[in-house]
Amino acid sequence: MGMTIALDAMGGDRAPGIVVDGAALALRERPDLRFLLIGDRARIEPLLVRHRRLSAAVELVHTSEAVAADAKPSLALRQGRQSSMRLAIDAVKDGRAAAAVSAGNTGALMAMSKFVLKTLPGIDRPAIAAVVPARRRPVVMLDLGANVDCTAQHLFEFAVMGEAYARAALGVDRPSVGLLNVGTEDIKGHEAVRDAAALIRDSGLGIDYRGFVEGTDIPEGTVDVVVTDGFTGNVALKVAEGAVRLMASSLGDAFRASLRAKLGYLFVSPALRALRQRFDPRLYNGAMFVGLAGIVVKSHGGTDAIGFSHAIGSAVRLVEEGTNDRITAEMRKIASPGPQLVAASS
Amino acid sequence: MGMTIALDAMGGDRAPGIVVDGAALALRERPDLRFLLIGDRARIEPLLVRHRRLSAAVELVHTSEAVAADAKPSLALRQGRQSSMRLAIDAVKDGRAAAAVSAGNTGALMAMSKFVLKTLPGIDRPAIAAVVPARRRPVVMLDLGANVDCTAQHLFEFAVMGEAYARAALGVDRPSVGLLNVGTEDIKGHEAVRDAAALIRDSGLGIDYRGFVEGTDIPEGTVDVVVTDGFTGNVALKVAEGAVRLMASSLGDAFRASLRAKLGYLFVSPALRALRQRFDPRLYNGAMFVGLAGIVVKSHGGTDAIGFSHAIGSAVRLVEEGTNDRITAEMRKIASPGPQLVAASS
Repeated sequence: MGMTIALDAMGGDRAPGIVVDGAALALRERPDLRFLLIGDRARIEPLLVRHRRLSAAVELVHTSEAVAADAKPSLALRQGRQSSMRLAIDAVKDGRAAAAVSAGNTGALMAMSKFVLKTLPGIDRPAIAAVVPARRRPVVMLDLGANVDCTAQHLFEFAVMGEAYARAALGVDRPSVGLLNVGTEDIKGHEAVRDAAALIRDSGLGIDYRGFVEGTDIPEGTVDVVVTDGFTGNVALKVAEGAVRLMASSLGDAFRASLRAKLGYLFVSPALRALRQRFDPRLYNGAMFVGLAGIVVKSHGGTDAIGFSHAIGSAVRLVEEGTNDRITAEMRKIASPGPQLVAASS
Repeated sequence: MGMTIALDAMGGDRAPGIVVDGAALALRERPDLRFLLIGDRARIEPLLVRHRRLSAAVELVHTSEAVAADAKPSLALRQGRQSSMRLAIDAVKDGRAAAAVSAGNTGALMAMSKFVLKTLPGIDRPAIAAVVPARRRPVVMLDLGANVDCTAQHLFEFAVMGEAYARAALGVDRPSVGLLNVGTEDIKGHEAVRDAAALIRDSGLGIDYRGFVEGTDIPEGTVDVVVTDGFTGNVALKVAEGAVRLMASSLGDAFRASLRAKLGYLFVSPALRALRQRFDPRLYNGAMFVGLAGIVVKSHGGTDAIGFSHAIGSAVRLVEEGTNDRITAEMRKIASPGPQLVAASS
């Protein structure tokens, strides 16, 4: 029997519809999957009627409670013990599911996940990691907003976690890692980022560390993993999203600007469709809360069934690639001093 | 007689050619301008032959020294006292020029400008401010990299300076100001950004403060001025540049993907040209070092004559709009306690 994924059926702008349809799509790709579908039975059951195969692969766990999209994380944590989101995380904790996927309130999901699952040994702070499109090949970025203040040690942990995540998320054997900075010279940036560079270099972990990278390196895809604090990472991701949206809409305006342009559009539209598909955010949907002792994937709240199925796919890959085991093993190497250190202290 | 602008003729990848040609273009727009053209006489004089009108408006100041593009700022400061860059800043200090424009080494230009000109009264740290294209209308962003560590007080000063700069650079009467953060709610972000919000709101300066803005708000142009620390600002600017470049090159690939697309391109190309013009970085060239007791404008190092002429135009506007007088007047209002405070302390 295949793995079981716990789904928060009530999270997201168009839940539970996109969750049920997304699970059905994921099942088509991976017929061995099973799901704990957690939420309001009265709203979910009618949706399952359409999906005979999915119904056979689902265990429906009823709860009438759900975390509101605008709920404060601390409040959701205290009052949402019977929410669909919390029960999905609990299922990971209890071993009834290999991973949880939710399109709900990010802050609440992070607060609950930290509280229930705790962090992996050696990890101080979990981070949000995701894959973004780039020129060469997609890039892993973290942290995307879980930690607005970061020390050098946090950035170092993000590098270890991001490297392990990239192996599963990008399917790359030895991902290259860069630290986001305002320039590539060693003297650039603030203390935390300069000290983090030294920690990564001197860790002995064999990370393929390429030094400092700049903002332009993210869309260029110069390295596989871009490590930064949650403040900068969140801003960078949203600026990129906004810039792409501005370009796309300006392009649309240009194609409507004249009869000649409209005519030309008829000819170029298939090529543009291929371009849109390459940058389709649904293909990149599913951010991992890395550093937790359990796999939790956050889907974009506004996604559709296709996007949600990709978030499920991302969770499956993280389980199968043993991403958390890898992070734990790497952090253990640092915790236990190497032979030279033992010799020096004896 | 019009105002005099000091030009570092030796700064930039294609200096002194672009500086001389850029000055000639600027003079066509504003025939009342005069220039101190500072650099290697043997290289500049042959270039001036082509420009009869410019030659009459120029005082050539010879120096054989120039700051290298990769020079360390501290070294340039110590050893570059006779460099074209330094002499241009000195001319502002001595009142022989109303502003200085350089396409040279950013770090060296900032270090020299700070050393020679000092900051305006009440300003602790100068910042780099520039105009970037956006959907609604262009947006002023600062700091773009002068200060990687910022306190709430620094961010507050950037808001005052950015507002004054936007009046000249955007020609807006009462620019709206936002603080860049990872969300719009009051509880979001780190301490510095939350405390800065309170400082701006409680300043009594009548800044049209719109609260926190997110990364997407920069390309959207939700506010006229986006205030942030130099680390985040530098990354955000470069991510946006890179994302636009990736989109543009992917679009080029799409138009070359098939015969059909190539044919369509012939029809849409005039509309695309208009689009490219709208986002042409040369139109936005010229970043101000705000907060210094003198106007220094940094041109992009890789720009051409058109771009350099825009940097000169930007310096002229900052002088004419009295941007530095405005910043000084605003900071003085804060330094001198209002009537309530006087009453309370008596």
